[in-house]
Order: sequence, then C-alpha cells, then structure tokens
Amino acid sequence: MIIAEDKLIGRIRRRIPSAEGGLLRLGIGDDAAVLRPGPRADWIITCDQFLEDVHFLAAAHPPEAVGYKALARATSDIAAMGARPQLFLLSLVIPMERTGRWLDRMLTGMARAARQYGLRLAGGDTAQSPASNPKIGLSITVIGVAERGRALRRSGARAGDAIFVSGRLGAAELGLELVLRGLQRERRWKRLLLPQFYPALALDLGQWLAQRRLASAAMDISDGLSIDLYRLCQSSGAGARIYAPQIPCVAVPGELRALGVDALKLALDGGEDYGLLFTVPKRWAARIPRKFLGKELTRIGEIVRGRGVRLVGADGTSSALEPGGWDHFRQRAR
Amino acid sequence: MIIAEDKLIGRIRRRIPSAEGGLLRLGIGDDAAVLRPGPRADWIITCDQFLEDVHFLAAAHPPEAVGYKALARATSDIAAMGARPQLFLLSLVIPMERTGRWLDRMLTGMARAARQYGLRLAGGDTAQSPASNPKIGLSITVIGVAERGRALRRSGARAGDAIFVSGRLGAAELGLELVLRGLQRERRWKRLLLPQFYPALALDLGQWLAQRRLASAAMDISDGLSIDLYRLCQSSGAGARIYAPQIPCVAVPGELRALGVDALKLALDGGEDYGLLFTVPKRWAARIPRKFLGKELTRIGEIVRGRGVRLVGADGTSSALEPGGWDHFRQRAR
Repeated sequence: MIIAEDKLIGRIRRRIPSAEGGLLRLGIGDDAAVLRPGPRADWIITCDQFLEDVHFLAAAHPPEAVGYKALARATSDIAAMGARPQLFLLSLVIPMERTGRWLDRMLTGMARAARQYGLRLAGGDTAQSPASNPKIGLSITVIGVAERGRALRRSGARAGDAIFVSGRLGAAELGLELVLRGLQRERRWKRLLLPQFYPALALDLGQWLAQRRLASAAMDISDGLSIDLYRLCQSSGAGARIYAPQIPCVAVPGELRALGVDALKLALDGGEDYGLLFTVPKRWAARIPRKFLGKELTRIGEIVRGRGVRLVGADGTSSALEPGGWDHFRQRAR
Repeated sequence: MIIAEDKLIGRIRRRIPSAEGGLLRLGIGDDAAVLRPGPRADWIITCDQFLEDVHFLAAAHPPEAVGYKALARATSDIAAMGARPQLFLLSLVIPMERTGRWLDRMLTGMARAARQYGLRLAGGDTAQSPASNPKIGLSITVIGVAERGRALRRSGARAGDAIFVSGRLGAAELGLELVLRGLQRERRWKRLLLPQFYPALALDLGQWLAQRRLASAAMDISDGLSIDLYRLCQSSGAGARIYAPQIPCVAVPGELRALGVDALKLALDGGEDYGLLFTVPKRWAARIPRKFLGKELTRIGEIVRGRGVRLVGADGTSSALEPGGWDHFRQRAR
C-alpha cells in the first residue's frame, strides 16, 4: 500500500536537514511543527515565492540553482533583519514529470543552502501541478531569531545618516542578461552566472550590525537599489541623495558593454543581489569598515529631509531617481 | 511615483486584520515580521497551498469562498494540534486581470475567516502570474500557540484506544460532486455547497482535547477518512478497525443517490471536511460527549495491534480499507 504523496515527502525529508531537537520539538510528519522559543529571543518570520517563468526559467536555471536560490532569497529577509536563520517550511507545487531526477537535483541545491545558512526543514506542503499548467512553484517560509528588540528595521533612517551597501551591485542582473541573451552556455561567461544562480547572503553582516546597534535602518537589496532605497526612505519618512561615482557597480566585460549592457543601470535597477542596504548615524559612520568578511562595504550617499531619492552624477548635477527595479505589478522596463 | 506592488500590499493590509500588538511586534511592511513569544507557550506552525485548478475551480468557487477556504484549510492543521491560531503569512500569485474586483472579493472572504479564527496577517509575498499561465495560487503559513507540551500529535494512538470523528463526513465532497456534475447553480442544492465553500473548523474541540489531555492522537480529516486514518495508524505504529454502520455519513438526497452518489463512499474517501479524527484511551472514552458545541462526536471503532485499517460491514464481515482519499501524486480514483 503506497501513498505517493507521503513517499515524496519522505524523499524531501531524507535530503534536506530536518532533525528534531533544540527549537524544533516536532518536525515533518504531523499536522504542524511544534517550536519551543527561548526566553529572550524575538522570532523573525518571512515568506517568499520562487515561481517558474516568473522568478526562474527552467531552461536556463539548473535545478540545483532553483533549490539553492529559492531558499537563499527567502533567507535574505532574515539577514536583512539582523537575525539568525533557524527553520523553514516548503510549499512545493510540481508537475509529475519533474518528481524524479529534476526534484532530486533541486533538493540537492536546497540542502546545500540549508546547511550553509544553518536551516532545518520543519514542515511544508506538496501538490501536483495541474496538467493544464505543468509549472513548478516554491513558497518558502523562514523563521529566524534575534536578540529581543534588536531586529533591524527599514523605518529608522534619519536625515544626515550615511547610506551604505554591501557587495557589488548588478552582478545578479548581469547574469540574467546573459541568460536572456542566450549566452549562458558560453564557457567564458560561466563565472558571471554564479551571482544569478547562487546568490551570497549578508547574514554575518546583518547580525553584526544588529549586535553593535550601528544601523538606524536596513533592508536587503532584492528588487534593485533604486526601488529598495525608495522603499527604505518611504518607511523612514525621509529622502536620500546618492552619488553615482560611489556606487559599487559590477564589472561588465568590454564585449558585453559593446552590446549595450550598462554597469550603472544594472547596479541601480538590477535585482537579486541580496546585499544589504543600511543607514548609519553620521557620528558612527566611521565605525563601518571598508570590508566585512571579505565583502566591500561602500558609503554611497546620505539620508536627507523630504521625500524621494536623488542621484548625483560625476559632474555634480542631480536628478530624481525613479524606482526602476523589479515591480511585480507593473510591466518591467528593460 | 507609484509602486504597483506596494499599492497592492496596501490594499491587502487594509482589508485583512493586521494590527501590530501582543505577539506581533512588527507586522507588514518590513523585510520580515517580528514576533515575541510568551514564556510558557509552544509555537505551532504549518503551511498549506490553495491553487487554481488543483484545489479550486475559478468558474465554480466564488472569490469569497477561495479566500475563506484557503485560510480555513491552513488553520485546520492548527486545530488538529489543539492550538490557538494567532498569525498568518500570505504568499499570493495572481494574474493582473484578477487584481481588481476578484481580489477584493477574495480578501473579503479571507478577512471573514481571519476574524472568525482570531488570526492577524503578519506578512507575505505577492507575485504576478506569468501571461503563459494566468492562474491564482495562495500559499498560507499559520502560526498558533499551545500550552507547552500539550500539542496533539498523530503518533500516540495505542491498541485498545477508541477512535472518534467530529461532524458528518463527506459533506464537502458532496458539494464538490455537485460542482463537478454542473449542478451548483441549482438553488435547491445551494445549502449542500456550503461545506465545500466555507468549511467549519474544530478549533474549540481541539483545544478542549489538548487541555483535558484526553486524546492519545489527533489529526484533521483533510484528505479523507480512509487515507487520514491510515496515516494516523502509520504514525502510531498501529492498525485500526472501524464499523461502517457507525460512520456519521453526510445525508445524500434521494435524487442524488439515484445518480450514483454514495454516502459511505463520500464519508470514507471524501476530503476537505476538516473535522477531527482522534483517539482516546478506552478508560476515558466515556468522557467524550455525544455533542460538543453542537457538533456530533462519533465513536467509529478502535485502534488494534498490527498494521492497516479494516472496515467492518453491517453483516459483521470485515475487509481491508485501502486509503482512497486525496493523494496529490496519484491519479485520483472517482
């Protein structure tokens, strides 16, 4: 007597770290998971979708990258709060024909991200895609813990605060450009695809900022600097001025520049880098090192009174920076 | 300057209860929600998908029912653990053309379920369905609290325990039969559709069983008695014997019986009733009332040594009961 769904769940469970213990009192296999919070922690919870033809292309993204990135994206919001990832839930919808080798490879990638970020699978839900629409969808809920009252919010930026970003911006979007231009199979570009397929999170940086109480506001750069900084400003009731020459743009090879790929545009409007965008009161700005665990931290401007974001060019002239990154409910301008 | 996605999130937030306070220290609008656990609680967490063409049919299910049922289904797992629902996260994928009136009606139904079950929206994620696949999908994570160590599990049933179910079984499946037979617009069947569109949860019963420590095992009947009892037995390392004449079947009107709709089949293999299936040590079985808050509680059999479920007919003969309810990764037998 075989229950196919239960067998599938068994396969997921064997591949992804999911042992009970510590916070997780009861894991996969019951109606719900049982978590036991510690006494002085806040719990941080977020969810994120990763859908075929919306967030990834099955023809371009290897299954391992789908699993890795789906979990990394969701966990990035935990990094942005300065919290430590702990547990996750996976809602999976998958067509029958992908439940074999494709699923195993996807789970391999997801397990890699889970180990890297210290996450255990606590539960989830599986469904078969309808024949009318044989697409894959993942929805992931991640739970982290932060010291009580220390989570980093978007809303605390004040006029005069310095604005920082971590890492190089536009690298994931450059990888996507290669995919969209059909260049992803050329070996010489392989290295440029990695930030698109296997994004690196700023977990340690977020925790360091939260522990030191250095950041007045923080968020991850998931949809693009222009839209995410706009959101941080909206939450904080302030504006921002950033300087184009200071923005740490991805290095674009000359051959791709000649095809019209612009590094500043990638850095401003490209999403999925998952670095941190954070603000620091001016008097503490000097405490931010130029590198943190090997990753650049760059001061790109300051919070100002008023609304909106202005971009100051190399010649000193400034213009309004429209939020131009990823917006799900607007046609994307490319 | 309008960010369409943020506007959509604003609409969701205005319609669904989402106020900060109590457990919810920081709600919608940041990278993640911040929850502050109380000192003596366990947290119960579960997620559940509700997908167009898999779990509902847009042509048959009113938008209000989609919103209501999506949240009720997910919350049923909290009921099954004997916990109190608190917060939820919503991952929504929706085609642009449904973001107007359809979405408002869906949110109205979801808000109704949220108020009824005491749930507040703590966060979520939105994405637009690709034009290649303009379908709706909801994935919902629900968090509840239980007194420490009191959550009801599937795994505690022991030989000799009495098996109970709450409510009438097969009522939601009868509603689905009407939909699948194209009869849902006939006024005389309207009442029979309600259990399919607006399922009632056994939240109070679950909490009562957990507080009194009466149940040795419990789960909700979401996929059908035959498959769910099989799962409870598997988790508990035991078998079961149930008696067909004792199963509280939905009342099927003669006209539908004549069309071949069989009440016992609906009760055994029909899903989505969201009553509770629970076991009680024999010496306490008499403490279970015949009705609980107006809903029937029925003793249908007992846990036995060994494996598998046997169904005893009116004539005293018994046969193996194959798990015949909803299995996502097997063709459904109707």
